[in-house]
Amino acid sequence: MLRSLDKTVGLSTRHLCQTRKTVEKLFSRTKVLTIDNMNPHVKNIEYAVRGPIVIRAGEIENELKKGTKKNFTDVIRANIGDCHATGQEPLTFLRQVVALCVYPDLMKDPTFPDDAKQRADRILGSCGGRSLGAYSDSAGVPVIREDVAKYIEERDGIPSDPANIFLSGGASESIRNVMKLLMTALPGKERAGVMIPIPQYPLYSATIAEYNAHPIGYFLNEADKWSLSVEELKRSLAEGKKHCKPRAICVINPGNPTGQVLTRKNIEDIIKFAKEENLFIMADEVYQHNVYAADSKFHSFKKVLTELGPPYSEMELASFMSTSKGYMGECGFRGGYVEIINMDPAVKAMLTKAISAKLCSAVTGQAVLDVVVNPPKPGEPSYALFKQQKDAVLGQLAEKGRMATEIFNSIKGISCNPVQGAMYAFPRLDLPRKAVEAAKAKGQPADAFYCFSLLEETGMCVVPGSGFGQKEGTWHFRTTILPPVEKLGEMLNRFGDFHIKFLNKYS
Amino acid sequence: MLRSLDKTVGLSTRHLCQTRKTVEKLFSRTKVLTIDNMNPHVKNIEYAVRGPIVIRAGEIENELKKGTKKNFTDVIRANIGDCHATGQEPLTFLRQVVALCVYPDLMKDPTFPDDAKQRADRILGSCGGRSLGAYSDSAGVPVIREDVAKYIEERDGIPSDPANIFLSGGASESIRNVMKLLMTALPGKERAGVMIPIPQYPLYSATIAEYNAHPIGYFLNEADKWSLSVEELKRSLAEGKKHCKPRAICVINPGNPTGQVLTRKNIEDIIKFAKEENLFIMADEVYQHNVYAADSKFHSFKKVLTELGPPYSEMELASFMSTSKGYMGECGFRGGYVEIINMDPAVKAMLTKAISAKLCSAVTGQAVLDVVVNPPKPGEPSYALFKQQKDAVLGQLAEKGRMATEIFNSIKGISCNPVQGAMYAFPRLDLPRKAVEAAKAKGQPADAFYCFSLLEETGMCVVPGSGFGQKEGTWHFRTTILPPVEKLGEMLNRFGDFHIKFLNKYS
Repeated sequence: MLRSLDKTVGLSTRHLCQTRKTVEKLFSRTKVLTIDNMNPHVKNIEYAVRGPIVIRAGEIENELKKGTKKNFTDVIRANIGDCHATGQEPLTFLRQVVALCVYPDLMKDPTFPDDAKQRADRILGSCGGRSLGAYSDSAGVPVIREDVAKYIEERDGIPSDPANIFLSGGASESIRNVMKLLMTALPGKERAGVMIPIPQYPLYSATIAEYNAHPIGYFLNEADKWSLSVEELKRSLAEGKKHCKPRAICVINPGNPTGQVLTRKNIEDIIKFAKEENLFIMADEVYQHNVYAADSKFHSFKKVLTELGPPYSEMELASFMSTSKGYMGECGFRGGYVEIINMDPAVKAMLTKAISAKLCSAVTGQAVLDVVVNPPKPGEPSYALFKQQKDAVLGQLAEKGRMATEIFNSIKGISCNPVQGAMYAFPRLDLPRKAVEAAKAKGQPADAFYCFSLLEETGMCVVPGSGFGQKEGTWHFRTTILPPVEKLGEMLNRFGDFHIKFLNKYS
Repeated sequence: MLRSLDKTVGLSTRHLCQTRKTVEKLFSRTKVLTIDNMNPHVKNIEYAVRGPIVIRAGEIENELKKGTKKNFTDVIRANIGDCHATGQEPLTFLRQVVALCVYPDLMKDPTFPDDAKQRADRILGSCGGRSLGAYSDSAGVPVIREDVAKYIEERDGIPSDPANIFLSGGASESIRNVMKLLMTALPGKERAGVMIPIPQYPLYSATIAEYNAHPIGYFLNEADKWSLSVEELKRSLAEGKKHCKPRAICVINPGNPTGQVLTRKNIEDIIKFAKEENLFIMADEVYQHNVYAADSKFHSFKKVLTELGPPYSEMELASFMSTSKGYMGECGFRGGYVEIINMDPAVKAMLTKAISAKLCSAVTGQAVLDVVVNPPKPGEPSYALFKQQKDAVLGQLAEKGRMATEIFNSIKGISCNPVQGAMYAFPRLDLPRKAVEAAKAKGQPADAFYCFSLLEETGMCVVPGSGFGQKEGTWHFRTTILPPVEKLGEMLNRFGDFHIKFLNKYS
């Protein structure tokens, strides 16, 4: 009996093995590239701003289109800083200049103002064949790089060299280009370490994962308006040194997702710390036009570092800027730049070479950037309208930041630091124990569970704090403050009702 | 005497060591990121199309501007397929649609044709907030992905799913995105191997270097119009297997820099080889509109693979397309796409995730792509002009291809395969021994030496064959055939004179 069973089992096993081999052979025949043999670093990438909750938001939109009945009639996409998608109008002058560049026949159109025509003519004069359709230099159209340098000079009162300006597809591409240089390409503890704030904008963690570097998270202090303490930088670096070779520190100012604006003193401290620890500074300053709090002011890392004098003024720094934020919000055009300061000329040559294989960034995005850094001046035909449109956007953002903070803080179980700058509120959720357990049962962080419920109940799409990183045991979400005032008000009301129901359900 | 010398040397050595340490300390204090500690893979990147010879061309242009006297008055940039920079006019309809999208006030302008307005309206209807300034989905604007799929369906007579279309900044970005998935992220012999043609377009070798993969070069057969033999594929793969794990084969058709158009039989053979060897196929088909030879025809890999039936029709394939080439030549807008076929859904999800961290490609470039894949149809107001402009560009390219081939072949010591497609001639140089020695003395490949001399003497900027790879002991250069007919004629005359002088000097 046993022997016969053995025999049977033996046969089965052999059969199974054969079947498995056949399946494997068939499988390997069917797919060359599988989830198991693909680049493991790409698998490690996470990008919450367009993650699972946003995919679900798209599905709900489709369900609504097909007539499915919900408690709401539209999805509010508050997950991404996408100004025009949430109703912001483009700046007239900016679009006129770009349209003239795209279709120069419009130069004859008398309805286009002269200053727009002059800008377009100047940009085209610096393009191959006077066409936006020609490749630009890898670092960008020469006059636009000059205009960027002038803008920085006027901003800081410190010289800027166009040769240090590299235009790119948004700031993201420049951040990736610079971070790439810092990689050691070595495994384990020899990997490059990059200090990033927690909470952070997930482009940083995604890029670090893709290049197999080590993220060294330093916590922002929620109890003090998301400020940054040198003690915490030291603690996190000491911890990081156990795992990697620290090479750089990334600072986002004004902050994303946290909306704080660093004080000058705070920036000085960070610079001194980076000097002491021999770190390359990556300053994400894409929200430099978005400062709302009366007692806050934007200080560029370049200005502070330069004014500190030697040896600080000799430190290496990369400062990133974008056309996607500010008052223009031209995300889709993919304009941006990095200014590199004090970079070793041999390394700079390698940066230039590395970007040249990608040819150039979209020249339309470069043209948009030109308007941003070289807006109409007083006395020019387009000045009044441009200023009016710019001030309206920034004024409304300030109002919406105040409104969001106030309403969030008025809701039980929610606290929110003031939106000093940028485009987001990052409120903290005090979630009941039962909700945390329900989330755990679903295999979700509690704030993700909360945000999915919010989406299903109200159509509001926001990003859970766990997508940005946060202190263990705390829960947050990020919402943009971009919808028009009325819509934002309605959204915050929907939100308040949901929150009370959620608390009741899980308490 | 000896002891005292010893003592002196000892002292000197100690002094030297101390000095070196001080210098090193100062150096490490001055620069965090140096050529010695930067990412070694980025250092390994080479991209000849914008390499040292092109930098020198820029310097010469500046010298000319400053009034330096030369044998020529302008630099002819024949180094890069930059159509508009060399005088090609943009297509009216294309630019009208993009201008309307950029500045929708133009919808009221009666001088813009209705079909352009309808296209613009359709594109804007699929953009967030009806604005090109909104981020698109990471894979692109939905209606544009649909239009791409329809274009492919009409081209091949085979269904195409918009969900398999990913828009990107030129084809380059898609090529990088797909190649990235194939990396093993392992060192030494476990590195991914990627088969590339020799000569090749240097984006491939640059990307392979950046990701620390191994290039497996297979030689195209110059003696048979740069055709591709399966024997050579087998030889190169066997050689490659000694150094890496081969994962993919890249094919450029029509060829860059070599201008050949693969026959259907040749494509079938490549597909069967890839199947046999379990390789992912990357088909660079950006020149699919650029076929000139009467006996040549473009066959897409997708069509051939599908028509071969199972198991070939189940193979994984990525096909790349760009707005930079063809008859539109809109390089600066950075439009392009990849169609992925039969990709494992789990891998596809990873591709989607990885590109989402970069947000989206320039939406203006996407709009340009929409016109390319959905041009005016017979009966529509813009059809006649569009067709006339398209036919003129393609007709002239065909003529210029013939002209370049003929003239090159009429020059002693030069032979050139016919330009069947793409935008380049890749003539072979029979260089005298003395020239090869003079180049060696300068530490340059002989064709680089030749091209630098050509640039200094005539202002013609072309790229040495060594920048693309070639059989050892052979020398070539790549020149575009883009300058207008008259200018190209003048350029080829300048070239002929130079060549004779060069031969005389070194024989």
